[in-house]
Amino acid sequence: MMTLYYAAHTCALASHIALEEAGADYTAVRIDFARNQQRDPAYLAVNPKGRVPALVTDRGILTESPALLAFIAQSYPLAGLAPLDDPFAFAQVQAFNLYLCATLHVAHSHRMRGNRWADDPVAIAAMQRKVPQSVGACFNLIEHDMFKGPWVMGDAYTICDPYLFTFAQWMEADGVDPARLPQVIDHRRRMSERPSVQKAIAVELG
Amino acid sequence: MMTLYYAAHTCALASHIALEEAGADYTAVRIDFARNQQRDPAYLAVNPKGRVPALVTDRGILTESPALLAFIAQSYPLAGLAPLDDPFAFAQVQAFNLYLCATLHVAHSHRMRGNRWADDPVAIAAMQRKVPQSVGACFNLIEHDMFKGPWVMGDAYTICDPYLFTFAQWMEADGVDPARLPQVIDHRRRMSERPSVQKAIAVELG
Repeated sequence: MMTLYYAAHTCALASHIALEEAGADYTAVRIDFARNQQRDPAYLAVNPKGRVPALVTDRGILTESPALLAFIAQSYPLAGLAPLDDPFAFAQVQAFNLYLCATLHVAHSHRMRGNRWADDPVAIAAMQRKVPQSVGACFNLIEHDMFKGPWVMGDAYTICDPYLFTFAQWMEADGVDPARLPQVIDHRRRMSERPSVQKAIAVELG
Repeated sequence: MMTLYYAAHTCALASHIALEEAGADYTAVRIDFARNQQRDPAYLAVNPKGRVPALVTDRGILTESPALLAFIAQSYPLAGLAPLDDPFAFAQVQAFNLYLCATLHVAHSHRMRGNRWADDPVAIAAMQRKVPQSVGACFNLIEHDMFKGPWVMGDAYTICDPYLFTFAQWMEADGVDPARLPQVIDHRRRMSERPSVQKAIAVELG
């Protein structure tokens, strides 16, 4: 039995969906960012970084979405969530997820979490103004260069799909025009119809 | 034969060192950031993201440092650069590298690359002022919570070690006091004595 710590409207949704897709035996525990629960000593004992997701296993605690997604794929090979026996294809999956994590998610975070990188309110406002452009550039690259279709990596559904879906849900709030991203939007619609996605969202927003 | 595209003084050094440690058959090709060569059409055809590292293999092109590091470890299993047969231990390695990539490297980038996230020169200056604090907090967490010793993951040298070494080289320029980080500094010294590290640095700065 594993425990996934998540917060609503965060990237933890991707791991939550992947656990559902894998048929994993887990419970999901909510951390309330509105009450700053991620800084509570009890949670910092789980994850000293004070972030979500964190996955508690019988071997210890794991963090960082792309690492969790790869772990879930490797731990439940029968679910077929990544090309586990092909280092090149696995690296392509990881490279896509890394781009989401270290470029798209980071760009997005300048809208809500600018105080990580500057204290001046003028600077934080300037960061917020650039989010439509910086996040939009990421989605353009995904739409035109990275997305293979019908799933991110082509015919096979992988751990890239719930991760892209998670960020695609936020694009309107980030000021990105969905009309320019037909593949990403069609993918978002098809993802939202999957039972695993519907169940994870219902738990997180319930 | 693979080709690693790198630029001097970038995170590509970690993959460069790992290729040396693996005994891989590769050539290293420099991209000159001073001449903005990463935006040349010829390089954008290799990596549309306009970043380094990029690794050209006979199957295609891979990007993103943690993905490359895992690929090198999986492609050269005899080098023993990651616990390949243990998904939990592999995820711990990946989680460490993800923290470097998506938190430490991102914090560092606000010193040199603030224009990714804001256009206002006042905002960019405010970002630069916070780098000693934000990068320093990352190194504190590594020193006190994450680093196991003598190597990052304990007794075994892994793909975490060249990646940490790469960022540790930049801490003084980031305004972080090395005297507060004895484990990280001792690791940096021991890394700098490895022939693989010395060879990669000599090539990159030669």
